[in-house]
Amino acid sequence: MTLERTLAFDPYARECPTRELLNRIGDRWTVLVIGALRDGPRRFSEIARRVEGVSQKMLTQTLRALERDGLVSRTAYPEVPPRVEYALTELGTTLQEPLQAIEEWARTHMDRVLEARERADAA
Amino acid sequence: MTLERTLAFDPYARECPTRELLNRIGDRWTVLVIGALRDGPRRFSEIARRVEGVSQKMLTQTLRALERDGLVSRTAYPEVPPRVEYALTELGTTLQEPLQAIEEWARTHMDRVLEARERADAA
Repeated sequence: MTLERTLAFDPYARECPTRELLNRIGDRWTVLVIGALRDGPRRFSEIARRVEGVSQKMLTQTLRALERDGLVSRTAYPEVPPRVEYALTELGTTLQEPLQAIEEWARTHMDRVLEARERADAA
Repeated sequence: MTLERTLAFDPYARECPTRELLNRIGDRWTVLVIGALRDGPRRFSEIARRVEGVSQKMLTQTLRALERDGLVSRTAYPEVPPRVEYALTELGTTLQEPLQAIEEWARTHMDRVLEARERADAA
């Protein structure tokens, strides 16, 4: 049954939910937030510092969506002042490697993309 | 120099162009169009058939952006009727593997994401 369901998902098919999921996981904020949690749990403020310039609203939305999708967990510790930590779930951890590959690709090939844009815009 | 430039790119930094590039390459249409070119050059109509439900406008925009970024080439053959083919460039081919990993992740884990959403929405 699990196998059947897995085979049934196809992002090339019009109505498949994987298509929206693809967009979600490829979003720049998702890539960077998952990357920020690579080395362990982090507080909201730590993630915000790591992902420079992300707005509080955007970070809140991104974390909520990741939580709903089961990729990130949110743990509130009953301390004073209260401490809340975000961490990759086991499912989120499986996404780490593919997203890191995308991040690495962007770092490594950005210069070639910029060169291509210059050529295209000059043509 | 190339190494220095490569090291200088950092999507966690506010102004880095890799951040916008990340968003671009993680876009659902980019992932599916690059995937549609996996097995060789394709005509516009062939890509449109493979990526079910993509509008002509969206496919045109996606292909133009990929062309400008140097990831896809467009070749017009002087035939009657004219034939135009799109293909991955060498640079585009380097993106193939990371994007395929993302696509595979979505296919394989969609059921667990859906389960997580059901749990979250029931809570």
